[in-house]
Amino acid sequence: MREPLRIAVAGLGTVGLEVVRLLRDKRDMLADRAGRPLDVVAVSARDRTRDRGLDLSGYTWFDDAAAMAAEAPCDLVVEVIGGSDGTAKEVCAQALSAGRHVVTANKALLAMRGEELAPLADQAGRTIACEAAVAGGIPIVKGLREGLSANRVSTVFGILNGTCNYILTRMEATGQDFAQILTEAQELGYAEADPAFDVDGVDAAHKLAILAAIAFNARIEFGSLTIEGIRSVSAADIMFARELGYRIKLIGLAEYIEGNPEPQLALRVGPALVPKDGPLARIDGVLNAVVVDGHAADRIMMVGAGAGGGPTASAIVADILDIARGQTSPVFGVPTGGLAEMAVQPIAERNGPYYIRAQVVDRPGVLAELSAILRDEDVSVESLIQRGRSANEPVALVIVTHDVDEAAISRAMAKITAIDSVLQAPTVFRIEPSLG
Amino acid sequence: MREPLRIAVAGLGTVGLEVVRLLRDKRDMLADRAGRPLDVVAVSARDRTRDRGLDLSGYTWFDDAAAMAAEAPCDLVVEVIGGSDGTAKEVCAQALSAGRHVVTANKALLAMRGEELAPLADQAGRTIACEAAVAGGIPIVKGLREGLSANRVSTVFGILNGTCNYILTRMEATGQDFAQILTEAQELGYAEADPAFDVDGVDAAHKLAILAAIAFNARIEFGSLTIEGIRSVSAADIMFARELGYRIKLIGLAEYIEGNPEPQLALRVGPALVPKDGPLARIDGVLNAVVVDGHAADRIMMVGAGAGGGPTASAIVADILDIARGQTSPVFGVPTGGLAEMAVQPIAERNGPYYIRAQVVDRPGVLAELSAILRDEDVSVESLIQRGRSANEPVALVIVTHDVDEAAISRAMAKITAIDSVLQAPTVFRIEPSLG
Repeated sequence: MREPLRIAVAGLGTVGLEVVRLLRDKRDMLADRAGRPLDVVAVSARDRTRDRGLDLSGYTWFDDAAAMAAEAPCDLVVEVIGGSDGTAKEVCAQALSAGRHVVTANKALLAMRGEELAPLADQAGRTIACEAAVAGGIPIVKGLREGLSANRVSTVFGILNGTCNYILTRMEATGQDFAQILTEAQELGYAEADPAFDVDGVDAAHKLAILAAIAFNARIEFGSLTIEGIRSVSAADIMFARELGYRIKLIGLAEYIEGNPEPQLALRVGPALVPKDGPLARIDGVLNAVVVDGHAADRIMMVGAGAGGGPTASAIVADILDIARGQTSPVFGVPTGGLAEMAVQPIAERNGPYYIRAQVVDRPGVLAELSAILRDEDVSVESLIQRGRSANEPVALVIVTHDVDEAAISRAMAKITAIDSVLQAPTVFRIEPSLG
Repeated sequence: MREPLRIAVAGLGTVGLEVVRLLRDKRDMLADRAGRPLDVVAVSARDRTRDRGLDLSGYTWFDDAAAMAAEAPCDLVVEVIGGSDGTAKEVCAQALSAGRHVVTANKALLAMRGEELAPLADQAGRTIACEAAVAGGIPIVKGLREGLSANRVSTVFGILNGTCNYILTRMEATGQDFAQILTEAQELGYAEADPAFDVDGVDAAHKLAILAAIAFNARIEFGSLTIEGIRSVSAADIMFARELGYRIKLIGLAEYIEGNPEPQLALRVGPALVPKDGPLARIDGVLNAVVVDGHAADRIMMVGAGAGGGPTASAIVADILDIARGQTSPVFGVPTGGLAEMAVQPIAERNGPYYIRAQVVDRPGVLAELSAILRDEDVSVESLIQRGRSANEPVALVIVTHDVDEAAISRAMAKITAIDSVLQAPTVFRIEPSLG
């Protein structure tokens, strides 16, 4: 058996501890599979005195994670500190400069700083492995980069945030609104005290940016993504969507659009109506799912736990095993210099159907006024539901449109919001029929 | 860019041609991803004169595939001839002896002769890559061997044969019986003229044997699998199953059973009742799905097209790309010498619930007689449906049991079959509640 692979772990939160535990508990099995032992040699966290319920005395302790990455006698650094800048970035840069591989669960780092870090890896002849950064224990990074490497991918989409999916699932099951279920999710540990990263779609967008870079071998500018979260989804929307044959999910979608003269990428995260018989409609609770449409393989879906210590550690240790076997790939599937520069479709040009819910005071003429605005903007209505019937009480007016550019929807909504009898800006969600 | 990887293709049926076409049509994309061109240099099939709708004039032609494997100046041989012996086996043996890698879609070969061939690969320092042998375009071999390599797998199960799944789906949709739908499937090209391999469960068993070897790093004796097909499933069974909250699917299942003193593997393929809300119940038509329960990653499911030229070629070319990148793994995850010898649980010891349908003449006392037999064998009844009520007409008696050993069920069925009023041997299917 070959010499051990020496591992340093930066960050000892839930995931970091689970990585250390997994490497220790399954040491023999992993050595058999890797062809060599996988040995933790050093660890780092901010507070050395804290009792973490795990004996760490056999490993060299570093208070300074970046110093560990540079100086510990190791082959590989696991970065599970988190954050797109500061220590996490420094740890990765130091590790690569010192000729160590990096294994990370840090989606923000990859999505925001991947462009800086990946060339460092290429230069050092090392890799930044990031299976754990997308969809937890689901081996989608490997699946996309290697398992589906023969495919020209047309679309990759999915449910990429378990917190949002849990909240939407519970809103549908209980009929309660976002705020109530968010509190429940926080109590259960499915949502952070500050939930913004999850519920505003940022976390899903980080993952989507990584998936898109791999799927299309393209340089993804994170700022070019359209990102919306789920705070605007109400229990009423979920109910209306169901009535119309859809479910509302937070969807991340990256699509290759053949263009004239140049192709474009559509890159968006937001609540969307998906067909109730489609593959994503039945992915409930904290599960994640990723679907890839490839020209040869057709549609492939992968489902599993998108977060948590065990699943994330599973992905990290799988990456470690690959490195131990000498099987490393460029971070985004091709060397950084080979990544394509692709235009991103402005969201205003997204063409498709929309769901619109306006709260209106039920006075004569409101519907006529609203219909005229839609007509003037060439927005054609496929179906309409009006619910609530006491005079002068607000009623919900729900409209499903035919395919139309998002720009026309935006113009129409500005005008509709200005109508006196319309109580607030209407709620608008994309309908994604092609995900069915 | 490095020197080209030279490829010889043995077999020019649908899959072989699709491989050649994919390598040609996506040549630049594949070269970018592989870091080197992937060049077909030689092809072989029985009939050189046949028009295959593809220009093959640029490749050296061999009438003798084994000679090509031995003599063509290539780095890798794609074997898509099929069959567990004869030419296919000879091609693989010759290729490995000559120091070429093998990429194959041949599940029979791997399941039946893997034990002979894998050591040849180990000795030659080459690999037999077999992503295409299991579940078509779904990257489950890679997912299991690499993506989930950090996991002690407890169970791997799934829908591994698209023909059977199509037939069962259509039987449920139409209420028609097996024979009628088989004819339909044959007309649509979803079933072979001789459907035995598919409908008798042999094809699914080949795939299960490969998955089990990888999941458990164990030597799998193909003869140790329990294999049943779907000919015994009737439209009535599908209807009763639905009434009871289940769907009937052809399930392949490999389970690690902690034992005293030694662990065992359960290895079986057969029609089974799975919970209607479980992950497999909604996999319809020709789709395949594989579920892996890992100790760290939890439950991961992969779904996709299990057959067809495009999906199979997708898997083959992904394997070729891995080899071009120098990323090869032992066939079953660890070197052949390291595969564990594990006992297989005799099917008589399978413990779980069962579905039983007996056709009985509705005479007084039949139910009492039948119940007494079940009681004597300690088979406890969870629910019972009796349907059909005209005197002296055959009626269906459907029983769902509590957990019981299969041996007791077999003994009880032998006695029940001997009852005069029971018209034929009852239909018995396993219920697999843990797959829900």
